[in-house]
Amino acid sequence: MTAARLHDVSETELLQRLFPLFEGTTGRAQVLLGPGDDAAVLAAPSGSVVLTTDSMVRGRDWHEHWSSPEEVGHKVVVQNLADIAAMGAVPTGLLVALAADPATEVDWALALAGGIASAAAEAGAPVLGGDLSSAGEGSVVVGITAIGDLGGRPAVRRDGARPGDLVAVLGTLGHSGGGLQLLLDGRGRTHLDPPLDAGADEDAVAVDLLCRAHRRTAGVPWRAGAEAAAAGATAMIDLSDGLVRDLGRVATASGVRVDLDPEALQEAAAGPLTRALGPQEALRQVLSGGEEHSLLATFAPDEVPEGWRVVGRCAPGPAQVLLEGQVPEVIGWDHFAG
Amino acid sequence: MTAARLHDVSETELLQRLFPLFEGTTGRAQVLLGPGDDAAVLAAPSGSVVLTTDSMVRGRDWHEHWSSPEEVGHKVVVQNLADIAAMGAVPTGLLVALAADPATEVDWALALAGGIASAAAEAGAPVLGGDLSSAGEGSVVVGITAIGDLGGRPAVRRDGARPGDLVAVLGTLGHSGGGLQLLLDGRGRTHLDPPLDAGADEDAVAVDLLCRAHRRTAGVPWRAGAEAAAAGATAMIDLSDGLVRDLGRVATASGVRVDLDPEALQEAAAGPLTRALGPQEALRQVLSGGEEHSLLATFAPDEVPEGWRVVGRCAPGPAQVLLEGQVPEVIGWDHFAG
Repeated sequence: MTAARLHDVSETELLQRLFPLFEGTTGRAQVLLGPGDDAAVLAAPSGSVVLTTDSMVRGRDWHEHWSSPEEVGHKVVVQNLADIAAMGAVPTGLLVALAADPATEVDWALALAGGIASAAAEAGAPVLGGDLSSAGEGSVVVGITAIGDLGGRPAVRRDGARPGDLVAVLGTLGHSGGGLQLLLDGRGRTHLDPPLDAGADEDAVAVDLLCRAHRRTAGVPWRAGAEAAAAGATAMIDLSDGLVRDLGRVATASGVRVDLDPEALQEAAAGPLTRALGPQEALRQVLSGGEEHSLLATFAPDEVPEGWRVVGRCAPGPAQVLLEGQVPEVIGWDHFAG
Repeated sequence: MTAARLHDVSETELLQRLFPLFEGTTGRAQVLLGPGDDAAVLAAPSGSVVLTTDSMVRGRDWHEHWSSPEEVGHKVVVQNLADIAAMGAVPTGLLVALAADPATEVDWALALAGGIASAAAEAGAPVLGGDLSSAGEGSVVVGITAIGDLGGRPAVRRDGARPGDLVAVLGTLGHSGGGLQLLLDGRGRTHLDPPLDAGADEDAVAVDLLCRAHRRTAGVPWRAGAEAAAAGATAMIDLSDGLVRDLGRVATASGVRVDLDPEALQEAAAGPLTRALGPQEALRQVLSGGEEHSLLATFAPDEVPEGWRVVGRCAPGPAQVLLEGQVPEVIGWDHFAG
């Protein structure tokens, strides 16, 4: 008996199986009208909404032998919610667009939806609606739009960092990039590998942690961005393309120089990254590993919230990011050249 | 010399060429923060937002030899804005997600963006942000999220039609489906065909009109849905899957029977549809042609706004759509079986 594929079920039938997965999230008060009509209606009591969209593509943004559909669904939501958090907003809702080869297994699509629903539920961000399209052979594109609310505060942009501000990070650095490197090297652990034994050695635990960080991406607590804004963050960004590259965007937008703190970066590179990859590659991942979706923000020196790790300090321009007085060499990332 | 492709230019360079295309729309007052940061901020002064998402896929939702990239971009925006209008809202903004094979020509992508920008400008719906992803060989997926505002009115849902209400349509019926049929039959006109001569005969004019309706989809005036809501529409839907199928959704949600008016449908089938396809196929397209993106709504008999064509009347259930007492046979459409 072969597994049912999308072309074996009607769109109506598929929707009837998808909707219940999202029901746990749609009862929230901000949902004035949930899925099922031409469009959804979401409350925006503070008078504005924050909006972002980000997609993942099979074979480009995930490797089907490495990541489970639940992991992909969870990750694509987390990377969208990180953009909402980075403006200082809390998430209020999501839209989902799936374009998939009709030969895609129904169970794969339902598991993807399950991963989306679990991340949505964790963040209190109901799935308000979506779209199903058929796509060419082998093609699967999952697009998310995330909506957030600023609670009446102004958005925290990239251009507000001032000389003297400290640069701080909430969350890990380089873990996702480290996990990707391990998978690329053939030393990684995929969703198909059995869970580690209780007695697994520390090396195996480190490899497992990094690979899970790449495949599923925990993200930061869903209120963390809003709390940083309330604490006085002067600029904020989601770490999607690596510390140096994303911090460079803040430096450029704000017209400040940033001096990274070598000790703080060494500290971030210690632990699982160094254990799994050695100290040199660990530091490279801390500086340039992508898809971490930790938050980076700048604060006045006495306003850095608890739990944030200071990694540098802003100084008068010209706009650049320096490590021990040098521009650090980093790996780049370009979607089309990639 | 060969045309530049997406993999020949950096993402930064591509964005620098895309942003100016959308600049004409982003100056509007509701845009509190436009593209370029982690997320955009849109005003929602009436305290809620209407949200929908809809995608088009190369080879499924358009045929590359039939439709120009401008036409595709225009159409994907129109079909999203029709969902906003069908709730009784006016459009306030758009997000764009493009997942494309890196071998896609840069000029094709820029022309697609131009089509998106032109529809956005017509509707006063600024492009607030977007996402670029690379996709597999031959794959191009354009996803739009549209945002709208109800101006303090409740949303017009599908479930409000009452016995005695008249069913009315704003816009054409069956033109897009008729154009698609002509193209499928090899009798259609594509974007590559030269404009018609001033002296072209009426048959050629009819074929041209229908094919353009399929390729570009004019849509309804961008305030029409909100005006229908203000005039007292009791239920409303965007005609995306054909009159009988979409009206059936209203009938089911509202628990009413709808008796279609044969004369009104004959009238809709007359003119270019009958000229290009003959009377039988013309009527079939009026009943079941998809992607028309006209509005269908129900009104109390004395509240049908000017410009709307009455095509039927609601009666006490059971919920079904009847033509001369029979359930009309229609062609179906399913995204994955399709």
